[in-house]
Amino acid sequence: MAAADIERLIRLLGRLPGLGPRSARKAGLAMLKRPEALLRPLAQAMQVCLERVAVCDVCGNLDTQAPCSVCRDDDRNADVICVVQEVEDLWAMERLVSFRGRYHVLGGTLSAIEGRGPDDIRIASLLERLAAGGIEEVVLALGATVDGQTTAHYIYERIRPTGCRVTRLGHGLPVGGELNYLDEGTLEAALLARQTVA
Amino acid sequence: MAAADIERLIRLLGRLPGLGPRSARKAGLAMLKRPEALLRPLAQAMQVCLERVAVCDVCGNLDTQAPCSVCRDDDRNADVICVVQEVEDLWAMERLVSFRGRYHVLGGTLSAIEGRGPDDIRIASLLERLAAGGIEEVVLALGATVDGQTTAHYIYERIRPTGCRVTRLGHGLPVGGELNYLDEGTLEAALLARQTVA
Repeated sequence: MAAADIERLIRLLGRLPGLGPRSARKAGLAMLKRPEALLRPLAQAMQVCLERVAVCDVCGNLDTQAPCSVCRDDDRNADVICVVQEVEDLWAMERLVSFRGRYHVLGGTLSAIEGRGPDDIRIASLLERLAAGGIEEVVLALGATVDGQTTAHYIYERIRPTGCRVTRLGHGLPVGGELNYLDEGTLEAALLARQTVA
Repeated sequence: MAAADIERLIRLLGRLPGLGPRSARKAGLAMLKRPEALLRPLAQAMQVCLERVAVCDVCGNLDTQAPCSVCRDDDRNADVICVVQEVEDLWAMERLVSFRGRYHVLGGTLSAIEGRGPDDIRIASLLERLAAGGIEEVVLALGATVDGQTTAHYIYERIRPTGCRVTRLGHGLPVGGELNYLDEGTLEAALLARQTVA
């Protein structure tokens, strides 16, 4: 048996997504074998994040400043808000060069099965931002899942009375996708979204 | 883009075995989203390990005391040393109830391809322990790989002049194994190791 402190480290590592008991043991041992190369810098980085990282109270992003660097960036369009489910989706959008608006992170979707209603995700604060004025478009960049689309529809119905333009991401062929590997739902969405060849 | 401190955390997590860039991002975000449940306890556990865990200078085990708890346990047979490649192999042996001797962790195998010679693993300290006397058996519990078996053979040749008994783990059918799924090497080893039915 390993010492209690080592066991505890491995047990905690095993709570991270994607790490089971075996891979947690492997990761923990790798740290312990190379304390100066892995354990110390990682422990320090975590301590720094613990002290500095906070949820942006405007958009729900994670950052070391509040409001977050996206919300503070005056070069961005303040009149477009992209609504995403999670912080990782915001990061995915940020890898694009073509979107330069602001964000709103819901922190999840509505879910009948998991019992998440409108008060459990950050919809009220989105509506407050819209009520404060100056927003011309809300882009619903939610997953193409049942829960994602239900949430998009719900938000659309809540925003519609305000007259603000609401858009959603296009559905269709993924870039590089081949027709015979595509599921029928996507192919049908691509057919519906067909465009005249210029 | 995430803040620099978050990027750094994710980059460091990605250096752990079994975590690629995507899974490191997922693990990092999971911590940041639940700082009190995941980030803080993990940062503390790592700090504790950093301060307390050291390599046992007798056997090479990792523990919070030196010599390690196995080497200090007087209820164990001090006359049997089980030689293993890595600390995880020592832990695997410790899950058995039937071995109650001491250990010697080599910290790897001899490897022509990776350029590891006898001076790069803990062979000299094993021979010193034998020279100090009182050891009746050395169990070579090394992997059934080319490098593992080469290392076992090398150690056997070094120990042989001392007259100490050297054994190795048996090869054969794994418990629960079926013949038609077994590779020929194992099956042949099992045939060679056949025993008279009592």
